[in-house]
Amino acid sequence: MTSDLSTLFDRLFPLCRSITGPGLRESLAIFAEHMPLEIHGVASGTKVLDWTVPQEWSVQSARLLGPDGAVICDFADHNLHLVNYSQPYQGKMQLEELQKHLHSLPHLPDAIPYVTSYYNPLWGFCLPHRQRMALEDGEYTIDIQTTFTDGEVNFATCDLPGESDEIVLISSYLCHPSMANNELSGPLGLLRMYEHLRDLPRRHFTYRFLLCPETLGSIAYLSRFGDEVKDKIRGGMVLTCLGGHRESLSFKLSRQDWLDAPSPIDNLARKFADLYPDRFDLRPFTPTSGSDERQFCSPGFNFPIIQAARTVYGQFVEYHTSGDDKRFMRIEQVERAADVLAEFMQVFDYEGQNLRNTQPFGEPQLGRRGLYPTMNSPMNRGNSSDNAVDQRQTLNRLLMFLSLADGQRGLNQIADKIGCGPDALLPILAELQKQNIIVTEKIGD
Amino acid sequence: MTSDLSTLFDRLFPLCRSITGPGLRESLAIFAEHMPLEIHGVASGTKVLDWTVPQEWSVQSARLLGPDGAVICDFADHNLHLVNYSQPYQGKMQLEELQKHLHSLPHLPDAIPYVTSYYNPLWGFCLPHRQRMALEDGEYTIDIQTTFTDGEVNFATCDLPGESDEIVLISSYLCHPSMANNELSGPLGLLRMYEHLRDLPRRHFTYRFLLCPETLGSIAYLSRFGDEVKDKIRGGMVLTCLGGHRESLSFKLSRQDWLDAPSPIDNLARKFADLYPDRFDLRPFTPTSGSDERQFCSPGFNFPIIQAARTVYGQFVEYHTSGDDKRFMRIEQVERAADVLAEFMQVFDYEGQNLRNTQPFGEPQLGRRGLYPTMNSPMNRGNSSDNAVDQRQTLNRLLMFLSLADGQRGLNQIADKIGCGPDALLPILAELQKQNIIVTEKIGD
Amino acid sequence: MTSDLSTLFDRLFPLCRSITGPGLRESLAIFAEHMPLEIHGVASGTKVLDWTVPQEWSVQSARLLGPDGAVICDFADHNLHLVNYSQPYQGKMQLEELQKHLHSLPHLPDAIPYVTSYYNPLWGFCLPHRQRMALEDGEYTIDIQTTFTDGEVNFATCDLPGESDEIVLISSYLCHPSMANNELSGPLGLLRMYEHLRDLPRRHFTYRFLLCPETLGSIAYLSRFGDEVKDKIRGGMVLTCLGGHRESLSFKLSRQDWLDAPSPIDNLARKFADLYPDRFDLRPFTPTSGSDERQFCSPGFNFPIIQAARTVYGQFVEYHTSGDDKRFMRIEQVERAADVLAEFMQVFDYEGQNLRNTQPFGEPQLGRRGLYPTMNSPMNRGNSSDNAVDQRQTLNRLLMFLSLADGQRGLNQIADKIGCGPDALLPILAELQKQNIIVTEKIGD
Repeated sequence: MTSDLSTLFDRLFPLCRSITGPGLRESLAIFAEHMPLEIHGVASGTKVLDWTVPQEWSVQSARLLGPDGAVICDFADHNLHLVNYSQPYQGKMQLEELQKHLHSLPHLPDAIPYVTSYYNPLWGFCLPHRQRMALEDGEYTIDIQTTFTDGEVNFATCDLPGESDEIVLISSYLCHPSMANNELSGPLGLLRMYEHLRDLPRRHFTYRFLLCPETLGSIAYLSRFGDEVKDKIRGGMVLTCLGGHRESLSFKLSRQDWLDAPSPIDNLARKFADLYPDRFDLRPFTPTSGSDERQFCSPGFNFPIIQAARTVYGQFVEYHTSGDDKRFMRIEQVERAADVLAEFMQVFDYEGQNLRNTQPFGEPQLGRRGLYPTMNSPMNRGNSSDNAVDQRQTLNRLLMFLSLADGQRGLNQIADKIGCGPDALLPILAELQKQNIIVTEKIGD
Repeated sequence: MTSDLSTLFDRLFPLCRSITGPGLRESLAIFAEHMPLEIHGVASGTKVLDWTVPQEWSVQSARLLGPDGAVICDFADHNLHLVNYSQPYQGKMQLEELQKHLHSLPHLPDAIPYVTSYYNPLWGFCLPHRQRMALEDGEYTIDIQTTFTDGEVNFATCDLPGESDEIVLISSYLCHPSMANNELSGPLGLLRMYEHLRDLPRRHFTYRFLLCPETLGSIAYLSRFGDEVKDKIRGGMVLTCLGGHRESLSFKLSRQDWLDAPSPIDNLARKFADLYPDRFDLRPFTPTSGSDERQFCSPGFNFPIIQAARTVYGQFVEYHTSGDDKRFMRIEQVERAADVLAEFMQVFDYEGQNLRNTQPFGEPQLGRRGLYPTMNSPMNRGNSSDNAVDQRQTLNRLLMFLSLADGQRGLNQIADKIGCGPDALLPILAELQKQNIIVTEKIGD
Repeated sequence: MTSDLSTLFDRLFPLCRSITGPGLRESLAIFAEHMPLEIHGVASGTKVLDWTVPQEWSVQSARLLGPDGAVICDFADHNLHLVNYSQPYQGKMQLEELQKHLHSLPHLPDAIPYVTSYYNPLWGFCLPHRQRMALEDGEYTIDIQTTFTDGEVNFATCDLPGESDEIVLISSYLCHPSMANNELSGPLGLLRMYEHLRDLPRRHFTYRFLLCPETLGSIAYLSRFGDEVKDKIRGGMVLTCLGGHRESLSFKLSRQDWLDAPSPIDNLARKFADLYPDRFDLRPFTPTSGSDERQFCSPGFNFPIIQAARTVYGQFVEYHTSGDDKRFMRIEQVERAADVLAEFMQVFDYEGQNLRNTQPFGEPQLGRRGLYPTMNSPMNRGNSSDNAVDQRQTLNRLLMFLSLADGQRGLNQIADKIGCGPDALLPILAELQKQNIIVTEKIGD
């Protein structure tokens, strides 16, 4: 049974998330209603890798009043009005002095921009550029009631166990207040993928799900669990920006791929993009922008983790503004992304297994197994069995499968040689496994 | 001294071969007059790899008579009239019932098709489609006198010993009755290759020749000798369809090549096709069609064995019909194929040998060996010696040969770097060997 | 302080050099005034590799007189008039008989050709073709006073020590009399490179300089020192033909490159040619022509030594004639070549060192190090720090450098991935080294 992502979205959207604090915890608690999340906390002041966990930030209220007392910006109306991690401030100042605390976008005059200053103490308001241009000279009143307290940074994990203790890590981030595609699409898609993989009859890998604030949260996760998982991670995927207008999904490949040693999940992403160019495209790894793969793929960890997205930074002008809302994101686009990525993972689940023909000396006598035409004549050479006039495609694939399944290659390599997608071979594989002509073997065993 | 292949052809053509039985044995006996073949037999009922040797099939007579008693088909006229491995049957039936036992080709209305049913017991007649269409309603008389008896499947081998006990396997098949290109061209070409290689002053490899019924015969050979030869096979070639209209010869590469690890004989075939594109072409390995390379290259054996042919299945409409006769095949085309393939083997005979310059430190002083111009001036820089005005080609090849013969590469690699065929270097190599500047070394020793 | 190459040229040009003898020794002595050369000698008759050191050749005088007693050729006028290594001869002969001892170039009727006969005893004169054609019948007088004495072949070496005892060999040849581009440009360029590298604050490699007569001299060097240096040579460069009209420099790659295993200096030459195609071009290795790289790259030594040149054989018609003079060569072209090649060597000096990020787990927090914008907003995403509006190029290169410097790659590989020349990264590297975020490591340690 799957959750109603639209209802979930509406509960999550208004919360004022940041990299720490109550909005983050409330959001994690909502997801924990739908998957058995374990919530972790790392105390303020703790050294996490090269960073230090900051204090928790809470907002009681924040208002900017005009010379006539009218409300210009009110955090209660939209939490993007306040620069994230603003210091508290109460005071009055002339418009000219105030201007350096205001943020707006001339090219998007009706949108409120999203501005943060996590590590440099300051305060500020964000507002539509059209509104800002209309401000009149005079004395403005600032009343920002925020607090910084020792607390913790939080993140949440849960596992779907498989036959193997090798881990596939699926993560997304929760830290942006009131944005949709570049915030809620990722965790909502992650929940939907969890539900798909949870419902499979069998999993080879153990799937670990992680929800955390971007950068700081993944650094905190790696600081606590990096050593434990680093030899077990077989692949993974950071989910971000799964909604929006684009039809195809886009994989950002891992650092291993960038360094010309693509990992299995990079290769599978490349294969899907090759096979289905209308449905998938690729972006090379870069450490200069992106999401938590920047941490997972840092040179000390170098995990084989890709990023999956639909409409990313640079593809929508509403990025990091109030224009990134539910209407732009569209719940159905997030759901479709999660469905497709769960299928991708079902294929990836065969990674690291070779296939072996148990009758490798000469051709198996297919005739007595009902897999070959019994009479050979110039009239039926296009058939794969006495009755099936199918241009022999199935028989040819079966013969190629038997020749290729020599215990030295897996489903993907076999599909490559046959010239089809790995999914297209699953019915043949099932038949050959049923007759015990093909078995699977863990590579290296 | 070479055999007269045309006379041999005329003796072999009328025999009714099948995968077992007297026609096969008579055919092998004829070849044994020309090469010292050892005849082997594996008893009916014996398990050979995944298969079981069937009973021997013999035909005493087979006739189909029309309602008026006229002979429609008589095995004595053409042994293709009877479905190969037909059950015995005597009886009468109406044309409508008879039709499901008749085989003909609408697109070749004057040809008798070749039909077999080795493993499914049935009976049938093959006839020209034009004749079949003219059959009138009424009661037909069937009289098929065949017997199935415990006997054996036969195959034959002989060896040409070389300096090394590494084996090059050259095989062809004998099992089709009264066909030419897709039957006798292979064994006749094999005999001619045998005679060429037999007459060489020196052979590095041991050449093993194998004649056997297709599929079952090679499976029987592998069942008995596969373990013994599998670590000794260095290369090999299945001969099929060496006649017909095509000018160029065609190599079907081995399974090793298909799996991106081409063996030395694959590489040599590729080299010849690159060097001489008008004379050679290539086909990739496939397990879905072909001849006995399907068995030799099955994943359990995975031998480096290619197939050589001239006019193959798909290139002549007469395939598997009575139209595949001597006139279509042409003896001269078979002879030319064997001549060229024997030359190919002479080059392959250098495989696995590296060449080493015995004077590798600095350039050898060629002048005192008569290999260099003694006076250097702007007037003779195009010469390779004082007297030879030949654009220095020979001297340049000699200098390159000396630089390349470092004990880490063989004739083919040296020829590649120099930019010519390996055959073109043999005179230089002979001169350098005579002066003991170049010696050969077995790779790995 | 650098030497005045023009003055040096004028002292060196008139000397009658050959592969042995006083002209060679005088030339080496002049270079020894500018660099601490050690002069070596190998006695006549000594076996050096496959060769034997010949006797020393000295010329006292050589004249050819016409029937009327007029001087046709006089060695005192131009030392190219006499075939190098001419036997002594005094006598008279008719023009017809004399012709086979005369050498001239129809296509360069005013040039004296350069002719040698080191290993075949004969005598001859070289003269402009226009002059030769005007010779009248009659009796000519030949008076060649040369001597052959037991002596030695000489060469000279000096070292610039570095942190490592791995050697970079820089060589050029001295053996052609009175020629400029194809003789003095090499040693003069070598001296200038010596001066550049001598003045560096730090060298990783030890630079060995070698001046020797071509072929025989490098063979003598290798015979005496080849075993000692063969495991220490990390790279090297033969200098030849550094002057002339061509703008770009040309690298002849090493034999290792030819055999598809390019050495580091081959790869750096390829990189420079890729990055700066207007300034560098490449020639493949060949053993059929060239300079002392033919000996250094002979298969027994196979040193990673390239050849650097500007205007080589085949690119100037004056090659090996009296037309190859100072005006053709141009001192400035030789100086520019040496400047550029010394820069090339400064980059090569980093070869074999990997770079390691000391903070590899997660991203280093660049903000607290002054390397990152402190406030993130849609308005400053093009900036690399709070103040620098530079399309982020510097920040992006820095982030890529940190990701790539994983101790498994060096400056060149990092530059490749970033997409710039290695020189362009030196400022970033310096900053990161200053903050101790990047350290260097010898590969293999």
